[in-house]
Amino acid sequence: MNGVTRRGLLGGAAAAGAAAALPVPAADARRLRDRRVDVAIVGAGLAGLMAARLLVKRGHSVAVLEANDRVGGRIKNHSLGHGKITEIGGQYLGPTQDRVAALARELKVGTFKTYNEGDNILLEEGQVSRYPASSAIPPNAQFVPQLIPAFGKLDQMSAEVPVDAPWTAPHAEEWDAQTLGQWTNDNISNQSARNFMLASTCAVWGADPGELSLLYALAYIRGGGNESTPGSIIRLLSTSGGAQESRFVGGSQVLALRMARALGGRVVLRSPVRRIAQGRAGVKVESFRVTIHARRVVVTVPPALVATIEFDPTPSRRLQIAQRFPQGNIAKAEVLYDRPFWRDSGLSGQAISDIGPLRSTFDNTPRSGSPGIMFGFIGGHDARTWARLSLAGRRKAALENLARYFGPRALQATGYVEGYSVTQEPWIRGCPAAIAGPGALLDLGPALRTPVGRVHWAGSETSTFWAGYMDGAVRSGERVATEVARKL
Amino acid sequence: MNGVTRRGLLGGAAAAGAAAALPVPAADARRLRDRRVDVAIVGAGLAGLMAARLLVKRGHSVAVLEANDRVGGRIKNHSLGHGKITEIGGQYLGPTQDRVAALARELKVGTFKTYNEGDNILLEEGQVSRYPASSAIPPNAQFVPQLIPAFGKLDQMSAEVPVDAPWTAPHAEEWDAQTLGQWTNDNISNQSARNFMLASTCAVWGADPGELSLLYALAYIRGGGNESTPGSIIRLLSTSGGAQESRFVGGSQVLALRMARALGGRVVLRSPVRRIAQGRAGVKVESFRVTIHARRVVVTVPPALVATIEFDPTPSRRLQIAQRFPQGNIAKAEVLYDRPFWRDSGLSGQAISDIGPLRSTFDNTPRSGSPGIMFGFIGGHDARTWARLSLAGRRKAALENLARYFGPRALQATGYVEGYSVTQEPWIRGCPAAIAGPGALLDLGPALRTPVGRVHWAGSETSTFWAGYMDGAVRSGERVATEVARKL
Repeated sequence: MNGVTRRGLLGGAAAAGAAAALPVPAADARRLRDRRVDVAIVGAGLAGLMAARLLVKRGHSVAVLEANDRVGGRIKNHSLGHGKITEIGGQYLGPTQDRVAALARELKVGTFKTYNEGDNILLEEGQVSRYPASSAIPPNAQFVPQLIPAFGKLDQMSAEVPVDAPWTAPHAEEWDAQTLGQWTNDNISNQSARNFMLASTCAVWGADPGELSLLYALAYIRGGGNESTPGSIIRLLSTSGGAQESRFVGGSQVLALRMARALGGRVVLRSPVRRIAQGRAGVKVESFRVTIHARRVVVTVPPALVATIEFDPTPSRRLQIAQRFPQGNIAKAEVLYDRPFWRDSGLSGQAISDIGPLRSTFDNTPRSGSPGIMFGFIGGHDARTWARLSLAGRRKAALENLARYFGPRALQATGYVEGYSVTQEPWIRGCPAAIAGPGALLDLGPALRTPVGRVHWAGSETSTFWAGYMDGAVRSGERVATEVARKL
Repeated sequence: MNGVTRRGLLGGAAAAGAAAALPVPAADARRLRDRRVDVAIVGAGLAGLMAARLLVKRGHSVAVLEANDRVGGRIKNHSLGHGKITEIGGQYLGPTQDRVAALARELKVGTFKTYNEGDNILLEEGQVSRYPASSAIPPNAQFVPQLIPAFGKLDQMSAEVPVDAPWTAPHAEEWDAQTLGQWTNDNISNQSARNFMLASTCAVWGADPGELSLLYALAYIRGGGNESTPGSIIRLLSTSGGAQESRFVGGSQVLALRMARALGGRVVLRSPVRRIAQGRAGVKVESFRVTIHARRVVVTVPPALVATIEFDPTPSRRLQIAQRFPQGNIAKAEVLYDRPFWRDSGLSGQAISDIGPLRSTFDNTPRSGSPGIMFGFIGGHDARTWARLSLAGRRKAALENLARYFGPRALQATGYVEGYSVTQEPWIRGCPAAIAGPGALLDLGPALRTPVGRVHWAGSETSTFWAGYMDGAVRSGERVATEVARKL
């Protein structure tokens, strides 16, 4: 297309699997020549890259503008040196996530099972116990008698929520006026069950139950499946048979890197889009680096980031969505060890706990078995408190927390890496995905996917199935490519 | 300072009291020479203008960059022709709003009492009745026995909330984990009392009770007073003795217009700030039209609009606030009549009602007595539904709604004006003010006013007293001027 080299395109991330902590200030980047294409795409995450890939396959010209200095959006490989990486963004693949699985096969990216052997740890009311990793639920936990039926009730309610239009559910108005926290208080009296509801929402949404509209939570649960299998909250939470079942060889960002490589000079990094102006014949998409003249534009950024773009005309409801679907707050504290020592004691590395900040943990060791990597999710209020500690303070807290689950050997770390940086990034602003408090989904949900003239919307949050996951991003890219192609 | 004329500065608004529905696209505006000043100020609402005014008085140089093509932010006069205006943004003045009152005296802007003679209308469970406008509460309403004690309980709880640090209240964590809707359901069983709680929050916050964190609502109530008089929810809702007691002669925007006139060429319109980059010696504030080199910068835009600016370094917690303090949704439907006909029947023009969409109304007739103007507040879910009707549909719905309160004469309108346009404006994004759902104020509140290096924060939402009101905006301008002056 023009003079951008392949090397420049993929940034440092392509070579080292790493990405800069801060993007290069857009205003300081080199100005490029204007381009004229069929479709401009804003954002080089999985949604934008997938849409570009499919449109190019159909013979259309595209340009993908990415604000950051790397591709992948909320998926990111972090280099550990010596060619090793750890994933500090989204990383898992599970059953019914068919579209991202198909993409991986097409790109020849292999998968392997998340380590799930031996026993998991349960820390409940001060007591540490073990239960088989093959069991989705610790059978003897005090929270089970109330939380599992509550999960069943949520699944039942979610079955009433149409996956493509949650706002039309029979009880949509009632459910969107309350929070999942309120529902929890009304339906669960046992304190431990309430604690583990919190641990669950922190891991799934990066939010406390009180931050989530009940309707939104039910729609998310309902979407955790596919056309033939309805979603369930246990699938969202599970390793074997669930959303954490498998991992990608080489790290999830490889999916984005391979698509970007195939797109070549069509992807322009360090180009935050500042203005989208529609005219009679087309749409002008402006960044500091380059202006794209296109027939249609696809905006794939997370809902909150739509606020960073000046539109003419104004997509009023999308600017409302930008204020009412904040990104969740999730921190991923990753601790490195010489080897996965917990496996020696027959432990899976998975823990769930009623104390924070790491309320759930996973073995994140690469397939090679070295180094040993353990990470914990910190979500919602815990994550916002966590963010105020110093880096040293967070490392210390993470190690001490892991020692409670896995013994003092957990204190002998060889390194510490944070996925939390993703939350701090100006072009991400929070993970794993957008959440909605009361009043947002009912009134504004219909505008999530509705085009505004020549502006089309994609991104994981616009997906019917697996919104908020990589699979949802891929699905949204497929949907919007078809939607736009019909208009060209 | 440079070649901007006074005429250009105040825009059409200065001459006609009107403002364009859409701002002139910034990228098309004429580029100006760079400037070097002591303090750059982002936003020419009351907060920014007040800060500029005080800093200039102390001998400092300032530049005020305003995104819109007018000054005033959320206060706006709308021309009715023949020199008459109606206010389609914030407009009222009440007791304990001392700082905006002092500003009005200084600017020689007169005030007059909101029309509050005769009887108000109550529509409750299908029955229309009258009660004296001098009474803050309809004495015989079915909602009174439960709602008034609930208001008393909220006031009592709010007394525990420190006005300058609500997040340190003894029950802060408990109260910020639930919504006012949840508290209402737990404390009010009577349906009519619940309905009028909704009518109250729609008028005060442009939100349903379920959208509001209880802690946030209590802090807002607590702030509805001054250093010697604690706030109360009845004061927020009242005309005589309350926040709707008085009006400004010539319309509230005159306060902004007079300050801007005195500041002259220091105010630059049509200049959305796109980037704020801090260096060792100063800060660079960039818009498409002009770049300001300053020692300090004051950002006065509503919390959500901070998302539209690219910062270096990133003020992480402020970008979290930008996602978690959405602007309320309030529509102001203003209906014009040849004269205020309701006064003939001894009616004040005020109504409260358990049906929407206009759940509360006011006589908004100018002091001259002509034309007759009536407006109704439409808030929260009602407002989001309202926005999807056509203009003709909204006008029809407003007239029919008023006819239920004031009889068929209300159908004989001579005009219809909407304050709702304010919500649609890209540089406003919602009125009256930012609200917070659960989890935001406790964790992020401390960052509302905390400077980030050379970046200082103002705007009504950063005020201790009357946050969300004009008085809060003025107070925040005063506070930040002192804060910045100490650093110069």
